[in-house]
Amino acid sequence: MNGQEVLELLLKLENHEIDAKTAFSTLKGMPFEDIGYANIDHHRGIRQGTCEVIYGEGKTAEQIKGILERMLLRGERDVLITRLSSEKAALIEKTIPLTYHPEARIGIANETLQKDHIGNIVVATGGTSDIPIAEEAAITAQTLGNNVVKLYDVGVSGIHRLLSRHDVLMKAKVIIVVAGMEGALASVIGGLVDCPVIAVPTSVGYGAAFNGVAALLSMLNSCASGVTVVNIDNGFGAGYSASMINHIGE
Amino acid sequence: MNGQEVLELLLKLENHEIDAKTAFSTLKGMPFEDIGYANIDHHRGIRQGTCEVIYGEGKTAEQIKGILERMLLRGERDVLITRLSSEKAALIEKTIPLTYHPEARIGIANETLQKDHIGNIVVATGGTSDIPIAEEAAITAQTLGNNVVKLYDVGVSGIHRLLSRHDVLMKAKVIIVVAGMEGALASVIGGLVDCPVIAVPTSVGYGAAFNGVAALLSMLNSCASGVTVVNIDNGFGAGYSASMINHIGE
Amino acid sequence: MNGQEVLELLLKLENHEIDAKTAFSTLKGMPFEDIGYANIDHHRGIRQGTCEVIYGEGKTAEQIKGILERMLLRGERDVLITRLSSEKAALIEKTIPLTYHPEARIGIANETLQKDHIGNIVVATGGTSDIPIAEEAAITAQTLGNNVVKLYDVGVSGIHRLLSRHDVLMKAKVIIVVAGMEGALASVIGGLVDCPVIAVPTSVGYGAAFNGVAALLSMLNSCASGVTVVNIDNGFGAGYSASMINHIGE
Amino acid sequence: MNGQEVLELLLKLENHEIDAKTAFSTLKGMPFEDIGYANIDHHRGIRQGTCEVIYGEGKTAEQIKGILERMLLRGERDVLITRLSSEKAALIEKTIPLTYHPEARIGIANETLQKDHIGNIVVATGGTSDIPIAEEAAITAQTLGNNVVKLYDVGVSGIHRLLSRHDVLMKAKVIIVVAGMEGALASVIGGLVDCPVIAVPTSVGYGAAFNGVAALLSMLNSCASGVTVVNIDNGFGAGYSASMINHIGE
Amino acid sequence: MNGQEVLELLLKLENHEIDAKTAFSTLKGMPFEDIGYANIDHHRGIRQGTCEVIYGEGKTAEQIKGILERMLLRGERDVLITRLSSEKAALIEKTIPLTYHPEARIGIANETLQKDHIGNIVVATGGTSDIPIAEEAAITAQTLGNNVVKLYDVGVSGIHRLLSRHDVLMKAKVIIVVAGMEGALASVIGGLVDCPVIAVPTSVGYGAAFNGVAALLSMLNSCASGVTVVNIDNGFGAGYSASMINHIGE
Amino acid sequence: MNGQEVLELLLKLENHEIDAKTAFSTLKGMPFEDIGYANIDHHRGIRQGTCEVIYGEGKTAEQIKGILERMLLRGERDVLITRLSSEKAALIEKTIPLTYHPEARIGIANETLQKDHIGNIVVATGGTSDIPIAEEAAITAQTLGNNVVKLYDVGVSGIHRLLSRHDVLMKAKVIIVVAGMEGALASVIGGLVDCPVIAVPTSVGYGAAFNGVAALLSMLNSCASGVTVVNIDNGFGAGYSASMINHIGE
Amino acid sequence: MNGQEVLELLLKLENHEIDAKTAFSTLKGMPFEDIGYANIDHHRGIRQGTCEVIYGEGKTAEQIKGILERMLLRGERDVLITRLSSEKAALIEKTIPLTYHPEARIGIANETLQKDHIGNIVVATGGTSDIPIAEEAAITAQTLGNNVVKLYDVGVSGIHRLLSRHDVLMKAKVIIVVAGMEGALASVIGGLVDCPVIAVPTSVGYGAAFNGVAALLSMLNSCASGVTVVNIDNGFGAGYSASMINHIGE
Amino acid sequence: MNGQEVLELLLKLENHEIDAKTAFSTLKGMPFEDIGYANIDHHRGIRQGTCEVIYGEGKTAEQIKGILERMLLRGERDVLITRLSSEKAALIEKTIPLTYHPEARIGIANETLQKDHIGNIVVATGGTSDIPIAEEAAITAQTLGNNVVKLYDVGVSGIHRLLSRHDVLMKAKVIIVVAGMEGALASVIGGLVDCPVIAVPTSVGYGAAFNGVAALLSMLNSCASGVTVVNIDNGFGAGYSASMINHIGE
Repeated sequence: MNGQEVLELLLKLENHEIDAKTAFSTLKGMPFEDIGYANIDHHRGIRQGTCEVIYGEGKTAEQIKGILERMLLRGERDVLITRLSSEKAALIEKTIPLTYHPEARIGIANETLQKDHIGNIVVATGGTSDIPIAEEAAITAQTLGNNVVKLYDVGVSGIHRLLSRHDVLMKAKVIIVVAGMEGALASVIGGLVDCPVIAVPTSVGYGAAFNGVAALLSMLNSCASGVTVVNIDNGFGAGYSASMINHIGE
Repeated sequence: MNGQEVLELLLKLENHEIDAKTAFSTLKGMPFEDIGYANIDHHRGIRQGTCEVIYGEGKTAEQIKGILERMLLRGERDVLITRLSSEKAALIEKTIPLTYHPEARIGIANETLQKDHIGNIVVATGGTSDIPIAEEAAITAQTLGNNVVKLYDVGVSGIHRLLSRHDVLMKAKVIIVVAGMEGALASVIGGLVDCPVIAVPTSVGYGAAFNGVAALLSMLNSCASGVTVVNIDNGFGAGYSASMINHIGE
Repeated sequence: MNGQEVLELLLKLENHEIDAKTAFSTLKGMPFEDIGYANIDHHRGIRQGTCEVIYGEGKTAEQIKGILERMLLRGERDVLITRLSSEKAALIEKTIPLTYHPEARIGIANETLQKDHIGNIVVATGGTSDIPIAEEAAITAQTLGNNVVKLYDVGVSGIHRLLSRHDVLMKAKVIIVVAGMEGALASVIGGLVDCPVIAVPTSVGYGAAFNGVAALLSMLNSCASGVTVVNIDNGFGAGYSASMINHIGE
Repeated sequence: MNGQEVLELLLKLENHEIDAKTAFSTLKGMPFEDIGYANIDHHRGIRQGTCEVIYGEGKTAEQIKGILERMLLRGERDVLITRLSSEKAALIEKTIPLTYHPEARIGIANETLQKDHIGNIVVATGGTSDIPIAEEAAITAQTLGNNVVKLYDVGVSGIHRLLSRHDVLMKAKVIIVVAGMEGALASVIGGLVDCPVIAVPTSVGYGAAFNGVAALLSMLNSCASGVTVVNIDNGFGAGYSASMINHIGE
Repeated sequence: MNGQEVLELLLKLENHEIDAKTAFSTLKGMPFEDIGYANIDHHRGIRQGTCEVIYGEGKTAEQIKGILERMLLRGERDVLITRLSSEKAALIEKTIPLTYHPEARIGIANETLQKDHIGNIVVATGGTSDIPIAEEAAITAQTLGNNVVKLYDVGVSGIHRLLSRHDVLMKAKVIIVVAGMEGALASVIGGLVDCPVIAVPTSVGYGAAFNGVAALLSMLNSCASGVTVVNIDNGFGAGYSASMINHIGE
Repeated sequence: MNGQEVLELLLKLENHEIDAKTAFSTLKGMPFEDIGYANIDHHRGIRQGTCEVIYGEGKTAEQIKGILERMLLRGERDVLITRLSSEKAALIEKTIPLTYHPEARIGIANETLQKDHIGNIVVATGGTSDIPIAEEAAITAQTLGNNVVKLYDVGVSGIHRLLSRHDVLMKAKVIIVVAGMEGALASVIGGLVDCPVIAVPTSVGYGAAFNGVAALLSMLNSCASGVTVVNIDNGFGAGYSASMINHIGE
Repeated sequence: MNGQEVLELLLKLENHEIDAKTAFSTLKGMPFEDIGYANIDHHRGIRQGTCEVIYGEGKTAEQIKGILERMLLRGERDVLITRLSSEKAALIEKTIPLTYHPEARIGIANETLQKDHIGNIVVATGGTSDIPIAEEAAITAQTLGNNVVKLYDVGVSGIHRLLSRHDVLMKAKVIIVVAGMEGALASVIGGLVDCPVIAVPTSVGYGAAFNGVAALLSMLNSCASGVTVVNIDNGFGAGYSASMINHIGE
Repeated sequence: MNGQEVLELLLKLENHEIDAKTAFSTLKGMPFEDIGYANIDHHRGIRQGTCEVIYGEGKTAEQIKGILERMLLRGERDVLITRLSSEKAALIEKTIPLTYHPEARIGIANETLQKDHIGNIVVATGGTSDIPIAEEAAITAQTLGNNVVKLYDVGVSGIHRLLSRHDVLMKAKVIIVVAGMEGALASVIGGLVDCPVIAVPTSVGYGAAFNGVAALLSMLNSCASGVTVVNIDNGFGAGYSASMINHIGE
C-alpha cells in the first residue's frame, strides 16, 4: 500500500467521508484473503504489476485449486503455477481452465489467448539437459508478455557454436543464460554483449558439480561485468526478472 | 535427582530409617527402567515437568509400543511420539489409546481430554509449505497446556499481510516463526515485538536453500534481538521451548 | 507502531484535533532520526521495551559518538554498545559517560547507577576460554535488569564439577550455556533442568572445531528438549533473549 | 567484434581496398594491446558501451599505471579502478589525474567533470557497516551516468524505517540492496516494489554469517520475485548491472 | 611381508636351496590370489592377525561368494562380511555356511562355534536408533574373540541413566561410544573413565545433523582426553580397533 | 576453426573465387547442425581429433537417437555415449548399430571392428567397487585406439599387492588410478612411477567419504608429483585425457 | 567419584562416624577447587590416572600460573600445559619449575627427573612440516611414561623409505601417524601392521587441503582396519590415547 | 627400486658376489639418507627421472640448507625449492649457489646454465593477478627442460583476446591454464584444442570465490574433454605434469 493511497484515505477521513474505524479496517484488512492454509495477496497486481504466482511444490492439488478459485473470482488472468507436477495439473484442470507445459512443469490458469509481446529476451543453454529449466524461464517470460528467442546447446566446449549466433545475442535486451556443470557460458556471453545477463545455474552434472553449486559459484564469480545470478534451477525467477527489465524500455 | 532429595535420603540413613545398601541402591537404580533397547526415564516428569517424549524415527512400532506400555503402566498421560509415520501409528493404536495428527506426524498416547491451556503462543509461517512443521510445534504446545494462535502464510514477500496482523503479534507471550527459503520472517517479526521469538528453519525450498541451511543461517544471523533458533524442521523443539517460556509467567 | 496508536491518531484526525498532512507526517517520520550513516530508531524503547543497541564493529568511534549523542539528547539511559574495542571506547568516553568492560568488549553509555534486578539467570561455561563471551551475556543481562549467577569452567570432561552445582542450576529461571569445542554442556544441562536453556556456541577450539561450527551443530542437535541456540560467539543475543524470558514472570 | 564489422572488412577485401594478409591481421590483432602482464581490451568501449574497468587487487601500482597510460593515450575517460588501496592511489595520482573515494576504495582516472545523469537507481543498506560496499555501487553507477538515491541503515529489525521511505522506493527504476548478516532486506524490498532488485550480500557479521555466505544464501532463496544476486561484497558489479538496466529505458 | 622373512628367503638363496628366479617369484607373487575383480590378500592373517574382511557394499553376491570360496579353501574361519544386505546373504548361504545378523547387516562365514573370549569391551549408545551400528561393533568384537557388554540408550539428555551404570564403565578395558545427533555421550564417558574410548558418530538425526557430521565434529572436538574417532556409522571399524586394543593386555 | 583455414578463406575471397557474403556465411554457419534441442558440432573431429561424445544423462533416448542419426549420416564412427542406461540403450539399438557395456554404462555407435591400438595405458583400482568407473575409463581409452592393461583391487590396505605388480606399472605410458574412500592409491602409485598419473576419485565409501569428496581432496593434495585429477566418477574424462597423452608419443 | 567411594561414605554415615550434612558436603564439593575463572579437577588423578592437563590457548599466563600453583600445592607432578606460547612460558617459569619444548609448544611443570618408561609407541610423520605436531604427541607420551620411537619424513611419495623401516613398525604396540596433505600414510601403515594406529591429520598443505580437512577425511575413510582418528593438529590427544593403550598391557 | 634392480641384486647374491646380509642391507638402506628431520630420497632421480623437489613452506632455512647440502654432495643439479620466501632464499644463497625467482617464489639450486629445451608447453592465464602461479608453472617446466610460451591475461570476459592467439594454442603439445574467479578459461581452451589441458585454479577472487574453490569446482566440471586439474595455486604441480607429458613424445 503506497504513501499516496494512505494520504487519500486520511483525507477522506478528515472530510468525514469515512470514519476512523473504517479507515483502520481498510488499512488493516483490504488486500488479503485468508483461507486458512494461504493468505492470498490480491493487492499484488497493483503493487507489483503481475498477480501472485503460485509455487506448486509442497502444496496439494486441493490447496492450489482453492487458491486459484479465489483468484479467478477476482478476475485474475494468466496465473502462473510453477513446479507443478503433471499429476496435480491433471487434477486441477478438471475444474479450472489450465494450460500445462510438462517439460517446464508450469501451469497457466485462465490464460489470455491473444497477448502483446514486447522487446527481446534471449534464453541460451549450455547443453540439452538444461532445457527444462530454460523452458521454465521462457514460458514465464512469454506469459508475462515478452518476445523470447531460444538458443539451446551452445556451451563453451564448442565456442564456435556460440560465436556463430553472435547476431542473435547482439539484438537482445536481456539474456538469460542457463547452464550446469561449470557454468562458464555466463561469463563468455557476459563478455560479448552490452545488455544485462541473468545467469541460472542448473543442477545438471555429477560428482563435484554438487547439484549446481559449481555452476552457481562460477556464475557469482564471473569475470564479465553485467551478470547477476538467481538460485539453482530457478528458471521462473530468471524469466520474471528478465521481464521486469525488458519492460523498462517500453 | 536434585540435592534436596539426596539430603533427605541421607537423613533417613542417618536416622536408621534405611540402611546404607538401600540408600546406595536407591541412588543408583531408581529412576530408569531398562528394557534392552531403551532405558526409560520415569524420573523425567519430576525432574523436567513433562514425561519423556518418544522420538519415533528409527524405532519400530514394536519398540514404541514397548516403551509406551511401561509408561502407561506408571500412569503417564499425554505422551508425545514425534516423527511418527501413519503406518506405525496404525499399528500402535491397535492396543494403545492414541490420537494421531498426520500432517504434523505426531501421536499422543493416553491423551487428557479436558486440559487447562494458559498464556498465548503465536505460531507464524512464511508459506503454505511450512505448515506441517508449524503444526508439529502447535500440537506440541497445545498438548503441553498452552493456548496457541496460528498465523499461516504471512511471509515477507507481501509484508502487508504480516503488518495487518500486528495486533495478534503484540498480544503474544512467545512467538514461533516457521520459515524456509531465506527465513527472513524471523528477523521481521523479531523487530516488531518485545517477546521472545523462537525461529524454526524448514527444509522448504530448492537449490541453494540446501534443505534448510539457508534459512538456518539467516535466522542465526538475525539482525533483530530476541531471536533464538532450533534445528531445521524441529517444530517439536520449538513448541517445547515455547511452552517452557510461556509457563514461566504463570 | 502498534495498532492502538494508529487508531488513536486516526481518531484525533476524525475529531479535527490534527489534519491529514500532520497525521501522515506523524505516521511516516516520527520514530526515526536519519543522520546520514545511521537511521536511529528512537521508537524502539516503546516498541520493544529497551532502547536501540549499537553494534560497535564496523562503525568508527565518530559514528558511534554521533549516534549516542542523539540518543542521550532524548534521555536514553543504559545504552549498550557491543563489540566495542578498547581504542574506540577510549575515544568515546572523552565526551560521553561510558562504563567499559574490556573482557566482554561492551560499553554502557549513561549507565543507571542503582537499578532493580529481578529473577535469576545462570550463565555457565564449558571452559576458561569461553569466559569473554559469557561475560558479554552476563553484562547484557545485568544491564537489562536481571540477577545473574556465574558458573564458569564446568565442562563435561569432569561431569562432577557440574553435578556438584546442581542446586544452582535448579534455581534458575533461564540458563545460558556458553561452550566451544564440542559444546556438549548444553545437552547435559538441558537434560538436568526444567527451565529454558539458551546455548551459545563459541569459536574456542581448533582444527575441526571450524571456529565454532562443531559447537553450533552440536547444540542445534541437542538430544535434550528445551534448548535453543544463538549465533557463534553471540553472548549479547543470549543475554538479551534470556532477559526477555526472565521478565515474563514478573 | 560484431558481425557487421566482419562483413565490412570482408567487403573491403573483396573490393581490393585491402589485401588478405591485412584483413587477417586486422581480425587478429586490432582490439587488444599486449603489454606483457596485461592484454588491454581497447575494443570494449565499442562492444560493451563502457571502457575496460581495472580490478585493482592483485595488481601493483606500477601495473595499474601502465594500463591507465595506454588507455588515456587512446582518449578513454572515466576509467574505473576498483578495490584500489589508498597507498596505490597515492602512487598513481602522482602522474595520472585521479579522483579517489577512500570508503568505496574506487579510483576514477580522467574523470569527466560535467556528465548527464539519467534515470533513478536507489541504493539501500541494512546497516551502517554495509555503507562501504554501497558506496562502491553508488559511485560506479554515478560514474556510468546514472542518478543515485541513497537509503542507508533501513534494515528489517526496524521495518518502519523502511516503510516510511516507501515513496523513494516506488520511484526507483532499479534498486540495489546491500546487506550482511541475514540479508533479509532484499526479500522485504523485493516484495514491496515492481522494479528489478539487485541484491549484494556483504561480509558484515560474525560466526555463522561465514563472511557473507548467510546473506548470499538468503538472497538467492528470496521468496520475493524479481531479485537477482551478485557476489559477496561486489558493489561494483551491482552498480554496473543497475546502470545497464537503468539505461534500457532511455 | 616382514624383514625376517625376506632375510630367510635370501639366506636360502645364498645357500643354493633356491635359485634367484624362484626367490624373485616368491617375493613378487606369494601372498595374493587374483580372481579378476578382486585380489585376495591371503597373507593378511599372518601380517595382521585376522584374515581379510569383506566389505559387502558395491559387490554382487556372486563376487562375494567367489572371494569366500577361495578363502574357505585355504581354511579361513570366521570371515566377516560387513554391510551385507539380507538379499545377498540369502544367496550366499545357499552354498556357504553363513551366520547372518540382519540388524547389524553382518555375515560370518564358516563361524567357529566355540571360541574363547577375553577382556572387556563396553558398547554404549546414546539412543535406541543407534543400536544397528552398535550391533555391528559388538558382533565384530565378539567374532574377533572379545567379551562385550552392552549399555544401550544412555544418552546425556538423562545423565543419571549413565551415571547409574558407572560400575560397568569402570570395569571396561575399552569403550565404544555410538551416538548420533550431537554425539555428546563420547565426551561425557571420556571424562568419567581412564580407558581408551572409541567414538562412532551415527547418521541418526535430521536437519543440521547433516547425516552424522554434527556428531562427527562433536566427537573430534571432545574436551575429554582419550577419545579417538572412526568414520560415521563405522561400527565395524570401532569393533576392530577395540579388539586390537583389548588384546594388547593378554 | 583455426587460423590457417580463415586465411585460406580470405585468400579465396581476394581472388574472387568466392564473394564476401559467401565467406561470411561460411565463417558463421559451417560446422554446426542445429536440431532444436541440440547443436551438433560436426567440426570437432577436425578440431579435436575425435568426434563429439554424447553425455547420455538428462537426454531422452529419442534425443540421443536424433543426434546419432545426423552423426552417422556424416559417416562418423565409434561415437561414444556415456552414462547411458540399459533401458535407453535397448531403445537406441533398435535402429542404430550399438555396442553396449552395461557395467561401464557406455554405448558405442557404429563401432569399428578392427582398430589399431597403440601405447600402454594402465587402469588401476583401489577396490572391487571401483570397477564400474574403471571400466568406463578403460572402454573409452580402447575405443579411442589405446592398449589398456587392468590392475584391479590393488588398494593400499595391502600394499604388497601393488608392489608385486611393479613391473606392470613401470611399463605404462600413462596410469589411471581409480579409487574411492581415502583415495591414497594415487599418491602411492604417483611416488613409484615416472609417467603421468590421472586420478579418478569415486563415490565409493560412506559417511565422511561424502560421495567422493574425501577421495577428491586426497588426490588434489597428493604429496607425489605428476598426479592430476578429474571429477568424481569421471572415468570417461580420465580415459579421454589418457588417450590424448598416450598419442603424443606416436 | 566412583561407586565404592560413595558406598564407603554412606557406611560411615550409617555408623555415625560422620553426619548427613558432612556427607552431603563431601559428595558435593570435594574434588574441585573453584578459583573463579577455573574449576580445577583435583580428582582426575584418581579418576583417570593422570592429573588435569591445561589447555594453554585462550588462557593468560596469569591464569595458567594460578591453576598451576593450586595443583603443585597438592603435590601434582608432570603437569602438562599444551599450546603454550614461548612468551607465556617465559612468564610462568619465573615462579614455577617448568620444562618448555618450543617446537611442540608444550610445557611440563614440576617434571619428574627419573621416570620409568614402558612399552613402545612409534610416532611417524609424512613430512618435515608435520614434525611440530609429532613432537607434541611424542613429548606427551614420554611425559606419561612411555617409550617413544620417531620415524619422521616417511611419506608415501617415496614408499621405499617407509618399507625399509618395516622392522621398527612391526615392534610397535601403538603407532601414531602424523600427516597433512592427503594423509595417505595412515592407510599404508594401517595395512602393514597388526597394532592400533592413531591418525593425526595436520594443517600442513595449501589450497584444497583446507587446513587439514583433506587429511582428516582421508584418515576417517581409511581402507585399512584398525585406524582411529583425532582432531586436526591434535598431537596431544594422540599421545594421550596412545599412552592409555600402551599401558593396558603392563 | 624397480624389479630389474632387485633381480640383479639377487643374481649377485646367487653368484656369491655379495652375501645375504649385504643384500638385505642394500635393499633396506640404500636410497635414503636420514638426517633426523628429513629422509632424503636420493633414489628419486633414477626412479622418477628428476631428483627430489623441496617444498619450502614449513621448513626453516637451516633445514632446507641441510637437505640441499646432502643433495649437492651427490652431484644433483637443478634442485627446485618451491614456496620459498625471499627471506629464506637470502639465507640459503649465502652458502649455496641459488637462482631465485621472487614472483614465482621458486629457487633453483646448482642450476645448469645451458640446457636443452624440448617440445612446446603453453601457459595461459585468465588475468594479471594469476601471473605468480603461472610463473611457478613456467619456471618449473623450463627447469625440467621444456620450451614454454606464455599467454597472459586472456580471460573469457574478452574472448577475442584468446581467439586472436589461436595459432599459439594450436601448436602446443600441452597447455597449462591458470585462472581464478570462475575459472572458465579452462573449458574454453579445452574446447578449442586437441592436446591435454592441465587446469590450475588460483585463489584470485573474493567472496564466493572462496579462495579458489569456485575455480576448482568449475575446472573439475569442465564440459570440455581433455582437462585435468591440480590443487589450488599448485603451479609447480602443473608444470611438473606438463613436463612429463611433453617428454613422452621425445
